[in-house]
Amino acid sequence: MKFPTGLGTSDASTISLLGQDLAADLMGKVGFGELAFWLVASRRPSAGEVRLFEAVLVALADHGFTPTAIAARLTYLSAPESVQGAIAAGLLGGGSRFLGVTEDSGRFLADTLVAAGTEQDYDVIALAAVQRARDERRFVPGLGHPVHKEQDPRTPVLFRIADEEGLRGPHLRLFEAIGRVHPQVLGKKLPLNGAGVCGAALADLGLPTDLLRGFALLARAAGLLGQLAEERRRPIANQIYLTVDRNAVYEP
Amino acid sequence: MKFPTGLGTSDASTISLLGQDLAADLMGKVGFGELAFWLVASRRPSAGEVRLFEAVLVALADHGFTPTAIAARLTYLSAPESVQGAIAAGLLGGGSRFLGVTEDSGRFLADTLVAAGTEQDYDVIALAAVQRARDERRFVPGLGHPVHKEQDPRTPVLFRIADEEGLRGPHLRLFEAIGRVHPQVLGKKLPLNGAGVCGAALADLGLPTDLLRGFALLARAAGLLGQLAEERRRPIANQIYLTVDRNAVYEP
Amino acid sequence: MKFPTGLGTSDASTISLLGQDLAADLMGKVGFGELAFWLVASRRPSAGEVRLFEAVLVALADHGFTPTAIAARLTYLSAPESVQGAIAAGLLGGGSRFLGVTEDSGRFLADTLVAAGTEQDYDVIALAAVQRARDERRFVPGLGHPVHKEQDPRTPVLFRIADEEGLRGPHLRLFEAIGRVHPQVLGKKLPLNGAGVCGAALADLGLPTDLLRGFALLARAAGLLGQLAEERRRPIANQIYLTVDRNAVYEP
Amino acid sequence: MKFPTGLGTSDASTISLLGQDLAADLMGKVGFGELAFWLVASRRPSAGEVRLFEAVLVALADHGFTPTAIAARLTYLSAPESVQGAIAAGLLGGGSRFLGVTEDSGRFLADTLVAAGTEQDYDVIALAAVQRARDERRFVPGLGHPVHKEQDPRTPVLFRIADEEGLRGPHLRLFEAIGRVHPQVLGKKLPLNGAGVCGAALADLGLPTDLLRGFALLARAAGLLGQLAEERRRPIANQIYLTVDRNAVYEP
Repeated sequence: MKFPTGLGTSDASTISLLGQDLAADLMGKVGFGELAFWLVASRRPSAGEVRLFEAVLVALADHGFTPTAIAARLTYLSAPESVQGAIAAGLLGGGSRFLGVTEDSGRFLADTLVAAGTEQDYDVIALAAVQRARDERRFVPGLGHPVHKEQDPRTPVLFRIADEEGLRGPHLRLFEAIGRVHPQVLGKKLPLNGAGVCGAALADLGLPTDLLRGFALLARAAGLLGQLAEERRRPIANQIYLTVDRNAVYEP
Repeated sequence: MKFPTGLGTSDASTISLLGQDLAADLMGKVGFGELAFWLVASRRPSAGEVRLFEAVLVALADHGFTPTAIAARLTYLSAPESVQGAIAAGLLGGGSRFLGVTEDSGRFLADTLVAAGTEQDYDVIALAAVQRARDERRFVPGLGHPVHKEQDPRTPVLFRIADEEGLRGPHLRLFEAIGRVHPQVLGKKLPLNGAGVCGAALADLGLPTDLLRGFALLARAAGLLGQLAEERRRPIANQIYLTVDRNAVYEP
Repeated sequence: MKFPTGLGTSDASTISLLGQDLAADLMGKVGFGELAFWLVASRRPSAGEVRLFEAVLVALADHGFTPTAIAARLTYLSAPESVQGAIAAGLLGGGSRFLGVTEDSGRFLADTLVAAGTEQDYDVIALAAVQRARDERRFVPGLGHPVHKEQDPRTPVLFRIADEEGLRGPHLRLFEAIGRVHPQVLGKKLPLNGAGVCGAALADLGLPTDLLRGFALLARAAGLLGQLAEERRRPIANQIYLTVDRNAVYEP
Repeated sequence: MKFPTGLGTSDASTISLLGQDLAADLMGKVGFGELAFWLVASRRPSAGEVRLFEAVLVALADHGFTPTAIAARLTYLSAPESVQGAIAAGLLGGGSRFLGVTEDSGRFLADTLVAAGTEQDYDVIALAAVQRARDERRFVPGLGHPVHKEQDPRTPVLFRIADEEGLRGPHLRLFEAIGRVHPQVLGKKLPLNGAGVCGAALADLGLPTDLLRGFALLARAAGLLGQLAEERRRPIANQIYLTVDRNAVYEP
């Protein structure tokens, strides 16, 4: 019986992580985002990759009073002794509706690229993909945003950073092409959702598409910590609770 | 009815975070660890503070096959469609025993400093604190480590980085003094636990002592993501499950 | 602004639940399983319905050292002060693989019945459904069991109780027919999984198929409580942890 | 290496639970509440014990729009594909403030009885306990209720059921005495909180005081299932979210 791992091991005098000496080689020398990338990808990212990756995490960290932020605050109100429970409750809303677009977009783009085979023209691939989605009465993941109806302000910045770092790869290119061609099929122009662009950027960074939601969760963990810190300084969870409870009406 | 927040807000064309324009001022310009600090502390940290802060997060990210890492992997085995559930399950073990020492140490040091009043000599404060803990038959949080019985390799590195950045404050100084004087009371020399030094460093960075556990959880979220990525590449959770199940014996 | 509910409300002198006076009409007069049914279905079940429903909950409560039971015990080891965290961690594994068959079966049977339209012969419906699943290279949910390769001992008991209470409805009948006809298509005889029969029984009780997993979770909450109680009396989580940790080997 | 358990085991033809044949001896013959008691206490309860135990679970199942119910609904809104995540998020609020009184009361009463030694007069024990709590500026757990300021309607019913079943034991007697004598110390009359009486009743049933919160969580799991079923039929979570989000104001 043995359990192999390439992550952390330790003995009496040393702690190893990713085959490195944690204290001598990582602490103070590797950033936290850089380490998160390395932990998942099993390779150390370049400085440019770290910059794009951290821009994605920064983009996804907090979106104000989302359902998940409210759930975390209410849980903290009920069980203030268990910070881990409040963070976990907040992350548990990181599912299909409010945090899913990053992973859905990355996976859709990756699947579309695989299916495109040898076709090289992104506009051709994009047009076929949008047409197919429409035929199957499905949405194209990452197309459109409930609030940013004209343009998601994160979108051009992510493309620019990817360009500056030489990291605009096939997923970002395909997503950009979708943004260009979809009006031909759908008859209206929708913005590229910034969280969707995040998914495309993470996929171009070579991160596993089945775990892209995980990066949204990591980013959100920082945001939830901010929410709890604010809840401590300036609590609102009790007011939210009372707003609901005092307006409850019995209807069978 | 209004719900004040200093974190995220948005309208059709802009996303604000911490009073900044997310797209124009933060993405690509602020690191992820830097943002996490800012979200909790409500102030942007200096470059030196970011380095010490990220060194702490790196130190706490992954400790190999901890109970929480195993719980996350088993949950991923059972419900692979819910990455958020696996991460949450892993964080829920971030309680008193396996992740608590960071917060416990930071709070103990902060409380001790408050109680010390005008006393300036850290050795005097430390000696009284260790003596009091012993009288009350309590452990001093952060003193000793189950594996690193001589020295925790993270400890000297954290002190060094704090020195390099000019950030050795009262909590680190007091903890260092505890490391120096405790043999006089306890009759044996114990190492300063690296996770405890992390708590002292976070407290010296001005972060709220009641939320220090939250930073350990944020760090661990990255580690758990690494665990899940490895579980996908090289699964062991089923073997762990079978090891337990096949060695189950009925005893009333 | 108003928030309607048919569940609990209270004022200074009364607590209402489901339109009943909790203290006067429910406590001591309604069983716990009966109340759980009522809460979801918005109607009070008959005595026979309660018996079948509770037989299902009893069937699903505990399956020994499942991944979810182990995850709950490990979480309890790490954070013993947070029972809610350990229970939550255990429930989070209640996803597609280890607890999903109840809901998957109930939903598959319900969908199949809807698609069958006016066809009345369960064998005909079953044969078509198994054939279609085979054509699409999908498994029939609830057919087969990893351990009970001949017969799941829960299966005949659930059918018998349903008969005794006059509650064998279309979902159970269809599932039984699937058990009868599938060898014609698959060329081998598989047992009806007991957890799948539970799903059929819950669907015949009129409970919403999209929430059937919820009943498996409720049942499992009792089982997890039993696991934690045993972990307190006779701990094994630390041994599980050490078994994994001590057999860890570094492999890049 | 062996892992002992007195709970569930199975082989190809049999499933055992608590040393019983699950299919032959438990399903259809044992109620769900009865099984939950048995799983924790390792003994089968009497019919009277089941009645009192289930009255407690019924009393604790749902309290309307509590923070935990709202958190579960918001999580379900965000991740509707993960019922287990929504239930878990709801349970995670089962901590010190909103669900803790049951366990706190049971433990306080148990500890007080142990400390009382050979003293037999409950009024004497109660008076000393209330006096001591007051001297230490602590609340007596279970004394007082934020809404039921005169009387918690659950309280007399629980005492009556305990009497009917011959189960009024030392914890209920002591709590009753506290209800009688505390005005002598506190100078005002507070009601006995029903959730606190539940804790006393569970302790009198011989259930482990360190796990009493677990029964509140089990009861609440049923209530949360009811909340999610109602959220499906008549959703309010999105309205709650919008109520908060649309009234957000930026304040640094």
